Amino acid sequence: VIGIDVGGANLKVVTGNGADIHYCPLWQESPITDVLSPYSGTSAAVVMSGELADGFSNKTEGIRFIVDAVRAALPDAVFYGTDGRFHPGADRSLAAANWLASADWLRELFPNGILVDIGSTTTDIIPLEPFDTLKGLSDLDRLQRGMLVYTGLLRAPVASLLRSVILAGTPTLVSNELFAVSADVHLVLGHIRPDEYAVPTPDGADVSIPASLQRLSRVVCSDLEEIGQEGAYAVAERFWQEQCSLISSQIERLDPLHEKEIIFAGVGARVLAGSLEGCLLADRIGEMADALPAYAVREVALRNGGP
Amino acid sequence: VIGIDVGGANLKVVTGNGADIHYCPLWQESPITDVLSPYSGTSAAVVMSGELADGFSNKTEGIRFIVDAVRAALPDAVFYGTDGRFHPGADRSLAAANWLASADWLRELFPNGILVDIGSTTTDIIPLEPFDTLKGLSDLDRLQRGMLVYTGLLRAPVASLLRSVILAGTPTLVSNELFAVSADVHLVLGHIRPDEYAVPTPDGADVSIPASLQRLSRVVCSDLEEIGQEGAYAVAERFWQEQCSLISSQIERLDPLHEKEIIFAGVGARVLAGSLEGCLLADRIGEMADALPAYAVREVALRNGGP
Repeated sequence: VIGIDVGGANLKVVTGNGADIHYCPLWQESPITDVLSPYSGTSAAVVMSGELADGFSNKTEGIRFIVDAVRAALPDAVFYGTDGRFHPGADRSLAAANWLASADWLRELFPNGILVDIGSTTTDIIPLEPFDTLKGLSDLDRLQRGMLVYTGLLRAPVASLLRSVILAGTPTLVSNELFAVSADVHLVLGHIRPDEYAVPTPDGADVSIPASLQRLSRVVCSDLEEIGQEGAYAVAERFWQEQCSLISSQIERLDPLHEKEIIFAGVGARVLAGSLEGCLLADRIGEMADALPAYAVREVALRNGGP
Repeated sequence: VIGIDVGGANLKVVTGNGADIHYCPLWQESPITDVLSPYSGTSAAVVMSGELADGFSNKTEGIRFIVDAVRAALPDAVFYGTDGRFHPGADRSLAAANWLASADWLRELFPNGILVDIGSTTTDIIPLEPFDTLKGLSDLDRLQRGMLVYTGLLRAPVASLLRSVILAGTPTLVSNELFAVSADVHLVLGHIRPDEYAVPTPDGADVSIPASLQRLSRVVCSDLEEIGQEGAYAVAERFWQEQCSLISSQIERLDPLHEKEIIFAGVGARVLAGSLEGCLLADRIGEMADALPAYAVREVALRNGGP
C-alpha cells in the first residue's frame, strides 16, 4: 500500500520504505502518469491539492485531470475527500483534502492539538478535534476561518506582506515586483541553508547570501551600493516579523484561551518553533513529518482496512 | 531631434511626427540597438528607467548596458540625469530620471501643479515646484517621500494590496499567488477595454471578462462555481478601493492643504480622474501625454538649445 500526495509542484509517494518526492509541475503537460508508473501493481491511497493550478479553468477540471492521470498508472487507486471518505473516482470533494488527511490521522495522536503545517507556500492551521467540524471545508472556507494562511517558508513574495519598511529610521514604501521571496529572507537570516532554497530565484541569479541581499535591496528599488547590507537585512527582518505575526494571530484566533497543544510541521517547522511556542511533529513521529499528507492518507487507508 | 525613454519593457521614441512605442524587454538579451538603428543620423536626448531590471546585478551595470546599447545606434546621444543635466555617457545620476524629465518640462506649464502619472506598473506623484528639490532623488528617495507608489493600472498583483476581502459579509484571507493582476480588476470594472489589457494574463488564458472573473476568484483559492460573479466583483472592487486609497493618501501627504493643481497622466489617467479630483494632462497637451518622458526629454533638450 502506498500513499500519494499530488500538489501543484511536487508529487510525494510514501511506501513502506520511506518517502519519494518527485518534481511534477501541474502547470505544464504533467508527467503524473510517468512518475507513478514504477509503482504500478500496488494499492494506492491518494490525496490532492494541485487542482487549483493555473492550467485548469476550474477545480472540477483539475480534479478530473489528476484522477485520470493517476488511474492511468494505478487503476485501483482511491482518493481521499474533504468528506473524510475515500472515493473511487473524480468528485468535487477531492479538492484540497491533503490537510484533512493529515488531521484525520493526527487527531488520534494529539486530540488536544492544533497542527501548524508551514510549507514552502502556505501554512495550514488545523484544530484536530472536533474532527467532524473539519469535514467539507473548502480552501475558501479555511481562508475564512484563518485555517489556511497563504504564506510559506520559500515562495512568498516579500512584497506580499509589506507595504513599507523602516530604513535607518525612515518609513519607505516598497515595490510590488517579484524581486525577492521568503526563501531570500530565511537564507539571509540563517533559517535555511542554500541547499534548502528549493525554488527558482526570482532573478535567475545564484543562491547565496550576497545574491539574496541584492534581491532584498531591490524590494525598495535600490541596490546594496545604496542601502548597504544593513538595509537589506532590515527588509528581511521586517518581513519575518510580519510573517510570524500573521501566523500567530491566526493561531490565537483559533485558540484564544491558549488551551491547545501547538504542533509544528512542514519545511518551516523548526524556524517557526524558534519564534512561536509549540512542539515539533518531527520530534514525535520522525522523518515522515516531511511527507505528512502522503504518509497520513496511507495510515488512514490502513486504519480503515486498506484502500 | 528625437526623445527616447528606455523603460524596463518598452522603449518609446518621440520624433517631430509623433511617438513610436517598441516592445523592448531589458530582462533578456535586449534589442535596444536594433530598435534604434532606424533613427541613426538624428540627434537624440535619452532618459531611462530600465536600469533596475533583473538582468543587471546593480544599477551601475544597468546604466552602462543601456548607454552602450543606445550609443551603438546613436553615438552622439545625450542622457538626462537626476541632476537635471544632460550627460554624454554613463553616470550614476542617469538611474530613473524619466519622471524628472517630465517634471522639468511641465513645471513651466503648471508651476502650481502635482503630476500624478499612473502607468501600467507604478504611479509617480511629483510636485513640480520647487524643481531644485527634486534633483538628485533616487527611486529609494521617492519611495520614502511618497512620490513613487508601486501600483499601476495593469501589472500590480491583486494580492499586493489585499490581505483579506469581504465575501458575502465574511472576512476572507487571500492567496499571495500571482492569480490576478490589476488589469483583471480594471477590465471587469469597465475601466479598460480588452485591447488595453497590454500585459500577459497571469494564467495564460484569454483576455475577456469571464476569464478575468475566473482569475479574480482564484485570489480566494476559489472559482466562479463556488463564489459566483458577485464574489469575483467583490475582490475587484476591494482592490480598486485600496489602490485609490493608497494613491490619494500619498497625494494628501504631498499636498495636505489642497493648494495644488492635480494633473493626471499615464495610461491610468482617465480611470483615476473618475475617482479622484484633478484634471487630465491629455486635455491640456494632447496625445503626447501618452509618451510623456520621451516627449519631455526632447522638449527640455530643445529648450536648452538642442542635444
